This record gives sequence, C-alpha cells and structure tokens, in this order.
Amino acid sequence: MADALSLAALPGIPLVRAGDDLAAILADGLARLGAPPGPGDVLVVAQKVVSKAEGRMVALADVTPSAEAVALAERTGKDPRLVELILRESVRVVRARRGLLIVEHRRGFVMANAGIDQSNVAPPDGPPHALLLPEDPDASAAALRARLGLPVIVNDSFGRAWRRGTCGVALGAAGLPALLDLRGSPDLMGRRMEVSVVGFADEIAAAASLLMGQGAEGQPAVLVRGLQWTTSTTAATAPPQPAAALVRPAAEDLFR
Amino acid sequence: MADALSLAALPGIPLVRAGDDLAAILADGLARLGAPPGPGDVLVVAQKVVSKAEGRMVALADVTPSAEAVALAERTGKDPRLVELILRESVRVVRARRGLLIVEHRRGFVMANAGIDQSNVAPPDGPPHALLLPEDPDASAAALRARLGLPVIVNDSFGRAWRRGTCGVALGAAGLPALLDLRGSPDLMGRRMEVSVVGFADEIAAAASLLMGQGAEGQPAVLVRGLQWTTSTTAATAPPQPAAALVRPAAEDLFR
Repeated sequence: MADALSLAALPGIPLVRAGDDLAAILADGLARLGAPPGPGDVLVVAQKVVSKAEGRMVALADVTPSAEAVALAERTGKDPRLVELILRESVRVVRARRGLLIVEHRRGFVMANAGIDQSNVAPPDGPPHALLLPEDPDASAAALRARLGLPVIVNDSFGRAWRRGTCGVALGAAGLPALLDLRGSPDLMGRRMEVSVVGFADEIAAAASLLMGQGAEGQPAVLVRGLQWTTSTTAATAPPQPAAALVRPAAEDLFR
Repeated sequence: MADALSLAALPGIPLVRAGDDLAAILADGLARLGAPPGPGDVLVVAQKVVSKAEGRMVALADVTPSAEAVALAERTGKDPRLVELILRESVRVVRARRGLLIVEHRRGFVMANAGIDQSNVAPPDGPPHALLLPEDPDASAAALRARLGLPVIVNDSFGRAWRRGTCGVALGAAGLPALLDLRGSPDLMGRRMEVSVVGFADEIAAAASLLMGQGAEGQPAVLVRGLQWTTSTTAATAPPQPAAALVRPAAEDLFR
C-alpha cells in the first residue's frame, strides 16, 4: 500500500476537436508537466475529450426520431432527437420520468441519457449537437496507453442510485487492474476480510475528477502518481483488467 | 479549480480502542507528517477507527435476536445476532437474499449490513464482535474538526448498485461542502451546464481510500491537500455542508 499520492492536471491542453491526435496532445501536456511518468503513474482522461477526438459528435438536425423515441420524449420532456440517440446507444430503458431517462448503455453502464452530453459540445449560438460516449472506452484507453506508454483511465461523472451528486467513474482502463481483489487477505486482526474487492479504477477516476471541474475549467487530463496495485496475499502486481470488469452484469443486479 | 493535489497517509497511527482520544492520536499523526495543515486541506478518517474510539463495538454474545432477525438470518445465511444488530441500525430492509442483506441505515445510507463490520474488529481467537457505524458520523466529523482545526471527512467503502467493487464514500463531513453545486455556471462553450452537482466529499473520500487499504495496511487517516471549493458562478467559497446532504431522500429515489 502506497503512503502518498500526487495528482496534477496536465497544463495547456487545448480544446479538442474531431480528428485531433489526442495522444500527441496528451504527450505534449505530460512533457509540460516536467517529470517523466514512471511506475505507479496513471493518466486519467475525461471522456469528453476522448469522444470529441474520436468524432462522436452528432448534429441533432441529422437525427430522425423513431416513434418509440417520440413517445419517450413526450414522457420525459426531452428532445425527441436526443432520445433517439439515447435509445440507439442503449440496450434497455431502466427508469423514465419527466426530466430523467436512465438506461443501460450497450457497454453495460447504467446511467442517465446513455452518457450523451450537450454541454461543452458546441457553441450556444450554433446548431445543437450531442456527444456520444466513445464506441469502446476500454479500447480508447488501450490505444492511448499504447501511444503514451503508461496506464490510462477514461473517466466520466455518474449519478448514483442512493446518493446525491455525481462522482467520477472509470469508463475505460488499460494497463492497471480495474478491480483489486483483496479477498482472502488476513486483516489486522488475522480474520479473513469480508468486503474486499475494491473498485480501484473508479476510486482513481473519482480522485482525478476533483481536478477536472465540471466543464468551465478545461482540465481534461490528470496524472496520478504513486499508486500501487499489488494483491495483499502475494505482494505481486495484480494483472491489468479493463473497466468492463467494473460493470455488474444484469444477472447479478438487484436494482435494474 | 485547483491544478494539483497531494495525499499522504498519517504515519504511525496505532490500533485504536474504545475510549481512545482519537483527535489526539490524529494530531500526533499530523505532527509527524511535518508541514502544518493549511487552507484547502481536508483530513479523511476511516469510519472504523472513529467507531472504535466511540465505543461502537458490540459482543455478539450480548445480543438476543428477535423473531424477525432469526427469520432474516435463515433467509440470508447470516448470524442471527448480527442480523439483529443490522435491524436495530436500520429503518428498512431494501434487498435480502442468501449472503446479502442491503438495508437503509437510520442515517439514510443504503448499504450492505448497515455498515456493520466484523473484520479488523477483534482477535480471531476471541469471542466474536461487531462494529457499528458511528452514532452520527457528521457529528463525529464536526467534533474532530473542532479539535484539529481543519475540515474532516469520515469515510467508508460502499458497494454500488450497478458496479462491482467498493468505492470510498463520505459518511460524515465538517468544514467543507459535501456537495458542490455548479448549476448555472457557463460551460466552456457558454451553454449552461447540465449535470453539475458534484458529490465533492465522496470524491475526496474515494481518493483517500486509495491509501487506506482494506484492512491489512493500517493507514486509517489521510491528509488531502490543495482542494478548492469555490462555486464557479461567484468565485466565493461554497459554505460547509454535512455529508447528510449526500443522502438521496427516499422520496427522490427510484431504486429503493
């Protein structure tokens, strides 16, 4: 277990647009930060800039809503074209009521609006756009990791069932274990530990969110330094595992 | 928005027992860390040591289970005396099945086993004990803050409805806003932000969990430095708010 961590927002990251070489932009930001990344470092990148670089922006004028989307838009008070995009990105509607549409995204995330964002997406006086999640956030993280040479998390902010306020979570991860399984480790008293599978990448994602702001600040990438991911039982490094492992399958779920 | 954070586990914190002066123990740990706390610093303290210092340990031999506890113990496969304690700490059972008992704690937390812990609680060869949550975690945080002179979060690890692995959350908070409300701030493009109430104390709690381990490591207190809690609209410091604000009331809840 590490006894200290540091987090630093990469300075000077410009607004990212479709087709930008995000890895090169992040490499420049890392270089501006000074000290080269080493063992225990993880780069956390906001979903929004990953989606933008991957061209996941859609002009609402190009979307023709289905009858189902129109009905659901009526029920929720949302734009039918936005609801159409939400339905295309989802495998099921979990809850719908006025002002709220919670779905299961096709990657398994249970989240509002399938993670589709309309803030920080386009100028307010231009035609309305929406920004979808990356097609495969684990693949996005893996591609950035391959270019940058350090573990990468793609994070987003999710609402929670029973708690107010959003919290950073890992949509994608590469080069680190998304879950740390400490089951079977003896605790301080020699008893076997009870609840001990930790959402490691989610905790890192939440920590990085503290430096990202929620839009106005423009700090979409944070380097976290000093992490350790050994299993307590073996002291060996736990193997990498994508963020898909953090998604509870519907069969295990009591609240869907 | 800050652009860097640091986290450090307080060194040399001994095993805490009922009646210990936890504030004095933490003050010693802060002193060992060197640099005195300043603005933007928050001390995160694990629920377990707060509960122990407050004498929230119960010997199971002293617990007589009710008929309801016996029935629920049968259904979940848990010790009837433990189930009795869980029911006493709760206002409703949310889900119960073999190996699992999710309740609404009387403080509103929807969580497994009412947060009652049996690991790191007593030596494995002694009589079994259970450790309850602090009676009022916000009051615990406020009392520590008054003694130590810096904002305090009492954290714990919660499971999540739709995600695997536990994640640190704030049970109690004093001296900082548990929620940061950024609604109405202009985003980078001048649009009004959509989802922008941030579970600030939960994100800090999750970050600190990265240094706490899950039992075997004995790092129950972490100093987080460099935080800022201004509202984007006013640039003024957001007012303190207890962690009770993070609890979604049952009336707002779609998943209870």
